[in-house]
Amino acid sequence: MAFIHDGFLLRTAAARRLYDAHAAGQPIYDYHSHISPRDIADDRRFANLFEIWLEGDHYKWRAMRANGVNERLCTGDANPLDKFKAWAATVPRCLRNPLYHWTHLELKRFFDIDDLLDEGTAERIWARANEQLQSAGLTARGILRKFDVKVQCTTDDPADDLQHHARIAAGPFGTLVYPTFRPDRALDAHAPETFNPWLDRLGAVSNTHIASLADLLDALRKRHQDFHDAGCRASDHGLAHCPVAICSERQASAIFNKSRSAQPITPEEHEGFSAFLMHLFGQLDAAKGWTKQLHLGALRSVSSRGLQRSGRDTGYDSIGDWPQAEALGIYLDRLDREDSLPKTIIYNVNPSDNYAIATMVGNFQDGTVPGKIQFGSGWWFLDQKEGMEWQMNALSNAGLLSRFVGMVTDSRSFMSFPRHEYFRRVLCDLVGRDIESGEIPDNDDLNGRLIEDICSRNTARHFGWA
Amino acid sequence: MAFIHDGFLLRTAAARRLYDAHAAGQPIYDYHSHISPRDIADDRRFANLFEIWLEGDHYKWRAMRANGVNERLCTGDANPLDKFKAWAATVPRCLRNPLYHWTHLELKRFFDIDDLLDEGTAERIWARANEQLQSAGLTARGILRKFDVKVQCTTDDPADDLQHHARIAAGPFGTLVYPTFRPDRALDAHAPETFNPWLDRLGAVSNTHIASLADLLDALRKRHQDFHDAGCRASDHGLAHCPVAICSERQASAIFNKSRSAQPITPEEHEGFSAFLMHLFGQLDAAKGWTKQLHLGALRSVSSRGLQRSGRDTGYDSIGDWPQAEALGIYLDRLDREDSLPKTIIYNVNPSDNYAIATMVGNFQDGTVPGKIQFGSGWWFLDQKEGMEWQMNALSNAGLLSRFVGMVTDSRSFMSFPRHEYFRRVLCDLVGRDIESGEIPDNDDLNGRLIEDICSRNTARHFGWA
Amino acid sequence: MAFIHDGFLLRTAAARRLYDAHAAGQPIYDYHSHISPRDIADDRRFANLFEIWLEGDHYKWRAMRANGVNERLCTGDANPLDKFKAWAATVPRCLRNPLYHWTHLELKRFFDIDDLLDEGTAERIWARANEQLQSAGLTARGILRKFDVKVQCTTDDPADDLQHHARIAAGPFGTLVYPTFRPDRALDAHAPETFNPWLDRLGAVSNTHIASLADLLDALRKRHQDFHDAGCRASDHGLAHCPVAICSERQASAIFNKSRSAQPITPEEHEGFSAFLMHLFGQLDAAKGWTKQLHLGALRSVSSRGLQRSGRDTGYDSIGDWPQAEALGIYLDRLDREDSLPKTIIYNVNPSDNYAIATMVGNFQDGTVPGKIQFGSGWWFLDQKEGMEWQMNALSNAGLLSRFVGMVTDSRSFMSFPRHEYFRRVLCDLVGRDIESGEIPDNDDLNGRLIEDICSRNTARHFGWA
Repeated sequence: MAFIHDGFLLRTAAARRLYDAHAAGQPIYDYHSHISPRDIADDRRFANLFEIWLEGDHYKWRAMRANGVNERLCTGDANPLDKFKAWAATVPRCLRNPLYHWTHLELKRFFDIDDLLDEGTAERIWARANEQLQSAGLTARGILRKFDVKVQCTTDDPADDLQHHARIAAGPFGTLVYPTFRPDRALDAHAPETFNPWLDRLGAVSNTHIASLADLLDALRKRHQDFHDAGCRASDHGLAHCPVAICSERQASAIFNKSRSAQPITPEEHEGFSAFLMHLFGQLDAAKGWTKQLHLGALRSVSSRGLQRSGRDTGYDSIGDWPQAEALGIYLDRLDREDSLPKTIIYNVNPSDNYAIATMVGNFQDGTVPGKIQFGSGWWFLDQKEGMEWQMNALSNAGLLSRFVGMVTDSRSFMSFPRHEYFRRVLCDLVGRDIESGEIPDNDDLNGRLIEDICSRNTARHFGWA
Repeated sequence: MAFIHDGFLLRTAAARRLYDAHAAGQPIYDYHSHISPRDIADDRRFANLFEIWLEGDHYKWRAMRANGVNERLCTGDANPLDKFKAWAATVPRCLRNPLYHWTHLELKRFFDIDDLLDEGTAERIWARANEQLQSAGLTARGILRKFDVKVQCTTDDPADDLQHHARIAAGPFGTLVYPTFRPDRALDAHAPETFNPWLDRLGAVSNTHIASLADLLDALRKRHQDFHDAGCRASDHGLAHCPVAICSERQASAIFNKSRSAQPITPEEHEGFSAFLMHLFGQLDAAKGWTKQLHLGALRSVSSRGLQRSGRDTGYDSIGDWPQAEALGIYLDRLDREDSLPKTIIYNVNPSDNYAIATMVGNFQDGTVPGKIQFGSGWWFLDQKEGMEWQMNALSNAGLLSRFVGMVTDSRSFMSFPRHEYFRRVLCDLVGRDIESGEIPDNDDLNGRLIEDICSRNTARHFGWA
Repeated sequence: MAFIHDGFLLRTAAARRLYDAHAAGQPIYDYHSHISPRDIADDRRFANLFEIWLEGDHYKWRAMRANGVNERLCTGDANPLDKFKAWAATVPRCLRNPLYHWTHLELKRFFDIDDLLDEGTAERIWARANEQLQSAGLTARGILRKFDVKVQCTTDDPADDLQHHARIAAGPFGTLVYPTFRPDRALDAHAPETFNPWLDRLGAVSNTHIASLADLLDALRKRHQDFHDAGCRASDHGLAHCPVAICSERQASAIFNKSRSAQPITPEEHEGFSAFLMHLFGQLDAAKGWTKQLHLGALRSVSSRGLQRSGRDTGYDSIGDWPQAEALGIYLDRLDREDSLPKTIIYNVNPSDNYAIATMVGNFQDGTVPGKIQFGSGWWFLDQKEGMEWQMNALSNAGLLSRFVGMVTDSRSFMSFPRHEYFRRVLCDLVGRDIESGEIPDNDDLNGRLIEDICSRNTARHFGWA
């Protein structure tokens, strides 16, 4: 039997039944990704398996480095085939890592390849995949159609002009493609060397001369509206932990002025300024009915050498262990007290925080919308079977799994859509085991609704796409 | 087959055998609860399922809010039947949440109802349960008898006059009902607006004019003796984390004076004052052979709006993530060094602390009493199958499960006694799986003793009730 | 069937097949232990089961104390047989604790005893074991041969003269016995009362008069070379958490002078001094191609009474919950930036840190050596089935299990070698379950290589012993 077969990950008859009847056919609402809108606008055709699969994948680079592969063959100047071979030789070393599952699930779903990838099969798979990548079904848009993606959200800087989104929206295309407002750079007042160029770009795109905090706020409000007009219904923030010691607008203004004139600010000023802006972002989102996403807890760019050589997001990040609960509670409460807490999805990257987060969301459910505050799906290092199960178990035990908005690819790669299938298999396996052990009733109406809701309907309702 | 059946949660033949022979028939020593002594004294009869089941249950309110139910139907002014229906409609949305199990186990054990509760069955179940609630077997006292509760401990403020306990003790009743000394309000010197009225109440009940720290200590000692005379053998404390930077008696006296005259104190003073009193409480408990319970790690009243509208303990609390180990070690050691460390049970609410706590208790086992220091059963958000299994696995791996004093309801509801059954099923399932996988010997004498000890004998011995 | 049988812990046919074909026959490279080099040099013969099994085992003492056994029978002056009986009576109370497995696995492998140890079997087992302990096969050296130990590393203070290692090396012996450089005492500048006597011992053994920091560094460098010459290829450090606020050499020198003249230093000075030395130790290890081991997170000597009565390492330690990630990242990065990060193995004692550590190691894999930075095997309280599974699952999900250097005894006891077997059974069971559930391919070449690599080959390669 092929490694990837119909019953992959589905250990019980109940799981197979649920998956076939209630999960497999659900469309995808991929409400958070880092996919390139330009590639969609261009309907990019990928020259080979390297371009579509390895080009920007820091998960694979980390595995290769751990396997003793030289950096030349990861992010360096080696040629695509050699890089692919180095990856192929690493794959058998990835047993029990999610990469092993992803790799073979992706080869199967994109190219109908059943062979296990390794040094021996590398060239054959390279040739076979490259050939198929020339078909109409495997361009950027072809892939979105192939996987029945109803909505695809990207992640975008407020300083981005959204021109690619405009190009996509201008023509007919079955998938709705929306930007997500991710203003992380706005908090970087502690790093004037990047903050100021970013302000200039933001000023240009918003037709604002940004000389003061008031100008910045104007520009952000304009862009927030522009994003909304482009279909955006969500913001996103990457934070080590929530800033809480908020400063006044007057203080924020003074801090801004310092940074704008390239003077250093203190860590306390940075915290205050960040908290001030995060509060504003909450208000903006609430006013427009958006959903705010918080990605908490990543310890980024830990290796100075890696950062210097390869830049951000190249595989030198890991899981932080800061306290999260108290600050997150204060942040959410400050907005809630003034009735401006938006729908919110909280993703944590340290599994030790699962229960703290799963219970925190319960504090701000206010009965206005089912699942108003969400505990987000297993993120980054937790986007794998164990991580997904932990997240769903914590959510189940401390809240309502039934109201969960489910999976996102959170990926830079067009080959990541099978991760929705992967998640659905894990979900059905979890529920199937509960059925077989008698922990939930053996009732397909009840359980089928649960599965369908989590696979697509909750998301469509939550974001107003249904 | 009914959802709740004889083999519920018992996945192996060994588990069923152990449960039937060694768990099901054990009496209950419910050594920690928040049940109302007044209701027991009055032998309260509950008018309907709302009164006995929903009236004060913040677990259910949280689930309802997450399900999009308006606050009117949770804590608001809607009528009991409408509230019950809103709860009933939420139940099918609770799949995989402990509420789903509790709900159906309680309906079964109290009213022999096998139907799954949902919108369709709500009215029928309402009628059937309400009818049975009029029988003699389901008054407050009837329930304690029905579940073979040998000892029922309540949780009481030192300022409580214990009149209901006196009324219960005055007449014949098969269940021993004892108070627990919970002096949380004594630490609230940072909140003079509640501290001072509490001091006045404490003064009244102890016949003391409380004008100084010495008066307070006198009053607390008197009440500690009064509680002891009423059969109390345990204290209880709810702490975010142990206060450690202890102050001297002189400093404590100065802090008291400030707070008594409604002046603000600093966080450091609050910490010092709290540590001073916690040390005293340890000495008092040790001197009388009591057991001290520490409930650590809850982040309380996170939602200001919720607190303001509904008060404390209404579903706006979650799991904190403070460091616990070092402070807890210092607290216990400070008492142990002067040979005044009482028997102690430590409950943590963040599962990430399980191993730190499970190993901490081992530092202070001194060979005087088996299981002198206990790692308490899964608490609050952890009082469910996953949480119980984690707690028992951590305790097993880092200490002696065999000496565990086991389950408490920790509930405000008279319908929570089946949680002992629930715990026992989880315990037998855990041990049964070990037997079937060969991780422990298949020896019913050995394993049966383990089960019986944890279900009741260890508790009876620990508290001196056997 | 005996409790310890061929299929012990191996729940699937795949697991049994893998264990028999690929794990059972692998030699042992025990690269971290606290075993006595003197006992090996002397080829110690143990008078009785107490000497070889209970004499220094704080795991057993903790269990006995928790079981209500008086200290006389643990570390006190009771006679060996009485102590053994007290332990025997505790064993049945250890169900589900790793001690229960270790006990019976050790009795089986050393003495072919199948009886379960308890009060009833104690005397018979005592007699039978003691008799066999007189055979040639069960002396210190006989045991190393019996368990096919190719390399045995001990743990040694730089102030140790390594005379026992020299004695072992001087004669023929099939097992290579190497020291490990553990300079924990060098960081103790905050405790002049122990620091200064240690400096004197270090001075004596290195033929250095240590009057200044420069002298200390000289002495440490000399000892590092001496250890290297004795075959040492690893250092080891026990740290609550990594010190990061490094001081300059000039500051370190001033701090040293204070401590050398018995003046107190501040916590900040202690941190700076520790960080300074830890950086130096990293440089030394990197220069010689050694592997640095970091044992992080233990909260030691929590009970003052226990420490005072019985000294360090007598069962009064537990799991700390300090943040680890950021400081560890800074420590590793500081070395990596200057290209002097050695091969490193990081062991954490709090399972809540598993994922943070498992991902941290990925930040510093640089492609020079497969598995250059290792997430170490379940340590201390985590050296049991649950702890091992968690560690291997975290490593699998966040890195490459295939490059794992696997198990160590980390023990003071000559009876701990079956823990390698125990680990191998847990590993094969884990992989076997993956095979049976289809999570990894059912391919014995692929999976057999994985098992063999983890059992021995990775270690032999990592330390250069292959």
